[in-house]
Amino acid sequence: MFVDVIASVNEARSDDFIHKTVIVVDVLRATSTIVTALAHGCSAVVPVETVHQAKQLQEPGDLLGGERYCKKIAGFDYGNSPFEYTGSECSGRRVILTTTNGTRAIQKSQKASRVLAGSMLNAEACAKTAFALNRDIAILCAGTQDDFCLEDGLCAGLLLHHLERLGERTGMNDLGLAMKLAFESASGQIEQILLACASGKKLIKLAQKDDVLYCAQMNRFDLVPVFQDQRMIVF
Amino acid sequence: MFVDVIASVNEARSDDFIHKTVIVVDVLRATSTIVTALAHGCSAVVPVETVHQAKQLQEPGDLLGGERYCKKIAGFDYGNSPFEYTGSECSGRRVILTTTNGTRAIQKSQKASRVLAGSMLNAEACAKTAFALNRDIAILCAGTQDDFCLEDGLCAGLLLHHLERLGERTGMNDLGLAMKLAFESASGQIEQILLACASGKKLIKLAQKDDVLYCAQMNRFDLVPVFQDQRMIVF
Repeated sequence: MFVDVIASVNEARSDDFIHKTVIVVDVLRATSTIVTALAHGCSAVVPVETVHQAKQLQEPGDLLGGERYCKKIAGFDYGNSPFEYTGSECSGRRVILTTTNGTRAIQKSQKASRVLAGSMLNAEACAKTAFALNRDIAILCAGTQDDFCLEDGLCAGLLLHHLERLGERTGMNDLGLAMKLAFESASGQIEQILLACASGKKLIKLAQKDDVLYCAQMNRFDLVPVFQDQRMIVF
Repeated sequence: MFVDVIASVNEARSDDFIHKTVIVVDVLRATSTIVTALAHGCSAVVPVETVHQAKQLQEPGDLLGGERYCKKIAGFDYGNSPFEYTGSECSGRRVILTTTNGTRAIQKSQKASRVLAGSMLNAEACAKTAFALNRDIAILCAGTQDDFCLEDGLCAGLLLHHLERLGERTGMNDLGLAMKLAFESASGQIEQILLACASGKKLIKLAQKDDVLYCAQMNRFDLVPVFQDQRMIVF
């Protein structure tokens, strides 16, 4: 099994994903929010690229969620904070979610055999599912504005850490080797490091430090979102 | 002082280098070879992009060096192995060097205030020189065929490690943070890791394992190549 880690959506080539399992990672905050919403009983999360698409897809009972520049969109039910998706009002309902980088990463992965959503919160479960699918894996770090993000890279490192424990031999590209090494240095201080990286600093400024601390938790949920029929559901 | 680490030549935007010090890193093997040649008495190394340019620039007494696909170019005096540049026949002579990624990285950095050549071999000296220049720094990892290379990333981490020891506060981009963490994990096993990364494996196949081990040595030379008048000379 070979694992490629891709630094950002900008670096992703759709054709490279054919026959592979893609794990999309957007720790702050799209994939953490998708995991959280499904863990709290949402029936499905539909990731879309634009506000217009979100409104068009909405059916009675659906919730609209999403952000632009880390802020809730006017007229939407929720923003992109995972805490907004933990209440009983989400249970059994579909969420139409539009985010900038995470959604683009999912869209870019459509040619893959399977697309999973990974985060710190569900890394071990995600690694187990990807391993069981027994195909080469691409871990697509969503990044921010086409740039590499540390939190996604460290999550790739955590996924590789779990994948290596499952299989005797996991080959990986050079960025994967680098992220595994970085995660090994960082594992005891993930919270502090996520607070110090670019996205973390931005969220602190927006008074959303609690989101960063929440998303830094490793392996809190034993749940893997899979993309099927244009929506994320529990695998 | 802020330090940006750039993953490959492909990711570099020339205009971002204005007013900055750029450290070009191509551990396997261009910048390691440039450092070695200057340390053994070469008067200058002229990096050029094509074989044709190299032949056109050659004057009596000049040596031609370079590689394509890790192999010596037909009709050239030397390849790109640092060991070829340690003999007395190099002393006092100019080397015209054409390599694929390292040379492109140097060319791409022309708008910088200063362009230095960094490698494991001279990382501490390079960090000290860049720090003394007192400008923001971009560490440009040359990479391979527009992809990130672990050996260049770890060298960026080593440079950041030394820069942090020089200044109280060094800000860095997320890739810089990741490379510093990766270097901290790797520092005790740089040789093994460089033998396991993509470029290392390729050089082993070409029976050039000794080059990898040589280029993995940290801070062997107290010498910094600087790009001036289209050539690399000792700073």
